[in-house]
Amino acid sequence: MLVYEDERLEDLQIRGLYIIQKTNGFRFGTDAVLLSAFANVKKGGRVVDFCTGTGIIPILLHAKTKAAEIDGLEIIPSVADMARRSVLYNKIGNINIRQGDVCEAAKIYGYEVFDTVTCNPPYERAGGGLKNPDNLKAAARHEVFCSLDDVMSQSAAVLKYGGNLCMVHRANRIADVMCCMRKHKIEPKRLRMVGPYMGSEPNLILIEGVKGGGPFVKNEPTLYIYDKNGNYTDEINKIYEREGRE
Amino acid sequence: MLVYEDERLEDLQIRGLYIIQKTNGFRFGTDAVLLSAFANVKKGGRVVDFCTGTGIIPILLHAKTKAAEIDGLEIIPSVADMARRSVLYNKIGNINIRQGDVCEAAKIYGYEVFDTVTCNPPYERAGGGLKNPDNLKAAARHEVFCSLDDVMSQSAAVLKYGGNLCMVHRANRIADVMCCMRKHKIEPKRLRMVGPYMGSEPNLILIEGVKGGGPFVKNEPTLYIYDKNGNYTDEINKIYEREGRE
Repeated sequence: MLVYEDERLEDLQIRGLYIIQKTNGFRFGTDAVLLSAFANVKKGGRVVDFCTGTGIIPILLHAKTKAAEIDGLEIIPSVADMARRSVLYNKIGNINIRQGDVCEAAKIYGYEVFDTVTCNPPYERAGGGLKNPDNLKAAARHEVFCSLDDVMSQSAAVLKYGGNLCMVHRANRIADVMCCMRKHKIEPKRLRMVGPYMGSEPNLILIEGVKGGGPFVKNEPTLYIYDKNGNYTDEINKIYEREGRE
Repeated sequence: MLVYEDERLEDLQIRGLYIIQKTNGFRFGTDAVLLSAFANVKKGGRVVDFCTGTGIIPILLHAKTKAAEIDGLEIIPSVADMARRSVLYNKIGNINIRQGDVCEAAKIYGYEVFDTVTCNPPYERAGGGLKNPDNLKAAARHEVFCSLDDVMSQSAAVLKYGGNLCMVHRANRIADVMCCMRKHKIEPKRLRMVGPYMGSEPNLILIEGVKGGGPFVKNEPTLYIYDKNGNYTDEINKIYEREGRE
């Protein structure tokens, strides 16, 4: 059995794919779906997803892009195991989940080997009291195992020159994200703010940086999740649209 | 006569104020009006506007805020003179226009003397061929006389600890602006993207940084200039609303 008792299968409604998630645990959210749609993955490219969790991003990228090979890196053994079982369940051949520390990504994969890094990292700065979290949700939300700087420095290490890092983060950390990218010579090149509903304050950013890129950011229209009537906007419907990979 | 032959008076339609502008020359735009509305100026505060040009921002801040004293700094003598004549024309007592170089702002005004710096700087990076511009429009658009780094370093020098820098800039330079602010210990604290019409890509940013501030950016809703029918949005109408200072 690939699905354990405390887990359930969720139908991703795209190309017959499913994902295994804990019934009571951290579950993937809209953020991962938005990042998968935003990510700029070239045909035949090699991608790694840092902090992959359930493996949702590799699985969606498999469905939506023409990447040749997709790696997923997750530090928590039981979570990495669950992601691996989702890949097996879907019989996907080009996704490889590894249990390991993002801070050692270049040691694990080598230097300058990826065309794209994706990451939906923990959003919160680690507080002093959170260094030894007693639950997995804390690790998914707080920078317990890796900081933003770790994510950037390892992205810079594993990316080929001209390769890109695609990330989702809290909008209130936009300065942290941009300055940290630039510090590691990954130049912010494309930005999209995301707001919960039309006219609201953006609460997320989608951002693409290019290793060795020149300055100037292409700004995409602010993306709203819900319209005034509380329904998904057309664009969100399109993102969730169940279209397969050709 | 305060208004010369090649100039004309424009009615600002707020508290009976006017501004003198060249008939054929660089004229203030929406950007300055948006910045004046975005700027966070405390009651009784002392403000300086860098690259003040026609003096539009000091004059609008005089109308819209309760600043005690507003300085304007402009490097081009004839432009500084024109701004000074606008202040005289309006008989405004608390605006002082000086001709001088932003790169020497701290020498001119002293260190840590302002509560707020505003700046609608030249947007374009200076190209090699633009070092000796033969017209004033080039200086208003290109970083001929001062770079973004000069604006930030001088803002940091003249601001009191906890004082703020409010700026408008091209959206494609958001990474430059944020990283340069942070470099000079002016932490980005408030951000608003501006798009020409609903659903468009943002082309401007309004940003407030606080000297010595902590991380975390408050994101305000994206501001659109025109609605789908090509009319000003409600918010732009409100900004242009001719309300006086109490």
